[in-house]
Amino acid sequence: MSKTKVSIKDIAQKAGVSTALVSYVLNGKEKESRVGQEIALKIKQIASELNYQPSHLAKSLRSGKTHTIGLIIADISNPFFANIARVVEDEAKRYGYTVIIGSSDENAEKSQDLIDVLVNRQVDGFIIVSAENSDQQVQLLKNKHIPFVLLDRYFPEIATDFVSTDHYKASYDAGTHLVRNKYKHIGMIAYDSQLFHMKERIRGYRDALQDNNITHHSSWLKEVRINDIESGVKRALDEMLSSDQPIDALLFATYSLAVSGLKYINKLGLKVPDELAIVSFGQAEVFELYYCPITYLKQPIVHLGQTAVELLINKLKNKPDEPAQILMQAELIERASSKTKKTLKA
Amino acid sequence: MSKTKVSIKDIAQKAGVSTALVSYVLNGKEKESRVGQEIALKIKQIASELNYQPSHLAKSLRSGKTHTIGLIIADISNPFFANIARVVEDEAKRYGYTVIIGSSDENAEKSQDLIDVLVNRQVDGFIIVSAENSDQQVQLLKNKHIPFVLLDRYFPEIATDFVSTDHYKASYDAGTHLVRNKYKHIGMIAYDSQLFHMKERIRGYRDALQDNNITHHSSWLKEVRINDIESGVKRALDEMLSSDQPIDALLFATYSLAVSGLKYINKLGLKVPDELAIVSFGQAEVFELYYCPITYLKQPIVHLGQTAVELLINKLKNKPDEPAQILMQAELIERASSKTKKTLKA
Repeated sequence: MSKTKVSIKDIAQKAGVSTALVSYVLNGKEKESRVGQEIALKIKQIASELNYQPSHLAKSLRSGKTHTIGLIIADISNPFFANIARVVEDEAKRYGYTVIIGSSDENAEKSQDLIDVLVNRQVDGFIIVSAENSDQQVQLLKNKHIPFVLLDRYFPEIATDFVSTDHYKASYDAGTHLVRNKYKHIGMIAYDSQLFHMKERIRGYRDALQDNNITHHSSWLKEVRINDIESGVKRALDEMLSSDQPIDALLFATYSLAVSGLKYINKLGLKVPDELAIVSFGQAEVFELYYCPITYLKQPIVHLGQTAVELLINKLKNKPDEPAQILMQAELIERASSKTKKTLKA
Repeated sequence: MSKTKVSIKDIAQKAGVSTALVSYVLNGKEKESRVGQEIALKIKQIASELNYQPSHLAKSLRSGKTHTIGLIIADISNPFFANIARVVEDEAKRYGYTVIIGSSDENAEKSQDLIDVLVNRQVDGFIIVSAENSDQQVQLLKNKHIPFVLLDRYFPEIATDFVSTDHYKASYDAGTHLVRNKYKHIGMIAYDSQLFHMKERIRGYRDALQDNNITHHSSWLKEVRINDIESGVKRALDEMLSSDQPIDALLFATYSLAVSGLKYINKLGLKVPDELAIVSFGQAEVFELYYCPITYLKQPIVHLGQTAVELLINKLKNKPDEPAQILMQAELIERASSKTKKTLKA
């Protein structure tokens, strides 16, 4: 055996082909990549002559034998993700898999670090709640044939496996519910984000108003940066409440926005729902224990997490050709915070 | 190079010593283990003759070069742990380390699985929030010289590095606070657990009552199994409220117990604090947004998490002889839920 380890690059140089091609062939993917039989044979012969040893990583990715799943969540301190992580763990354990978790902190760079760290540590595959601007890393995982399933968030322009809530429909239902309960000036606080699920939540809200013949006022939609939630939400509420068309109802696009918003609403002394009705995405004890229980969009956390694990394990075992893309419906849980508006007699 | 990999066992057999001794010597620990110089030299010579290659694991543990920390938390769906995980990540990142997280689900077996998985994946060291009955695995990590720091929970009988809240003092302060605010029948709901921090919380509560000349009534302390929180808390509250000495104040030993308890207190229609005063461990938005903001013991999450990372990195770099054992004080944040009792005029 030679002193230095033989790499795919060495084989590629000797065969006069690209490293990607060598990788395809040595990973048994020559059919998918339409490599000529002759070239494939040549690559294999050179690999054999050079006594090439595939790395542990490549081996484990092929055999799926580490029985470890890497779960990348967007923010561990958000109870939605923490709870879904718990479901993924429980479900993975049922299949004999251990889950290693990384939190990207809604940061694409950190997400890439975590993927690198976990790929090098031989996870069989990934379940990923994507951070903003991480579409290229998702594309790269796909190109490298590393098995993964996107959870809760996906990129419509990349054909991947995903399991997600139908964010558009959920938001549309929330808007329609508020209209039916006689609210007319319905605002929304969302994230200022390029993430598709956030755009969908905003689109659902806008369409609900439009389809119910409510003319949208420009001050009713506020987009807050995720690294500036507290002051962003305060500013948004101040502007929405003091506009010439002040809001009488408010949809929070996430749990974190709602928590900041409710604290500020308490500080302002506004009565929910009489002075401001509330509906929120996300779910947490706080919605149940607030003085006026909060109407919320219940995402199917258990079903989402379980299905993501099932899809990934199916992918590891059967390598299906077509990606599985599953949208699940959120359920509007009606509580006191959005009950039918009391109308004042003129 | 021989075909099969030379192991520590091979060297031990040839040298006629234990594998542990070989491990000590080859990991540069001969001084600590008081191995004779002659034996150490012999072991090193045999290792060299056999062309022994330390495994990646051993290498990475010695060099601390993977720049990855394994964080084992007790339950990812508990906001206390989720928040402390976020702090550990942020602090580790400042030092250039990536954190991989596993959640043991308060289960010692799962904790062992995670440690095995992460040791095999070459983390430099661990930060661990221990599950019940995991003292043996902590002892084993210590015996194997794998660097780790215990966080929030520790085993007083094992001399390890740890960073923890002073749980006894926190609980004592809570009890004393309730006595000062004129409550006389002070109950506590805790976990039925062998974990030292839980025993300490109970001891602090009992001592606070005793030192304030309040005779403890047997119905005032209830211990609930962690896998039966909801019904356990209901049963506990029913018994505490219907005893011949019904409680007028209640200390919850954890956030999860408090959330279950507050839901049931709402259901019973009890007014906080007039009919029942509340103090709780843990911290979460729910305590702030409850109709009557909840007095809680604020654990120094940021300081705990940061110090655990600092200790571990110091351990990786400098290999200090003595374990660092740090207790930090919780702060009682007084809110409306435990304000001075209204006394009825006879």
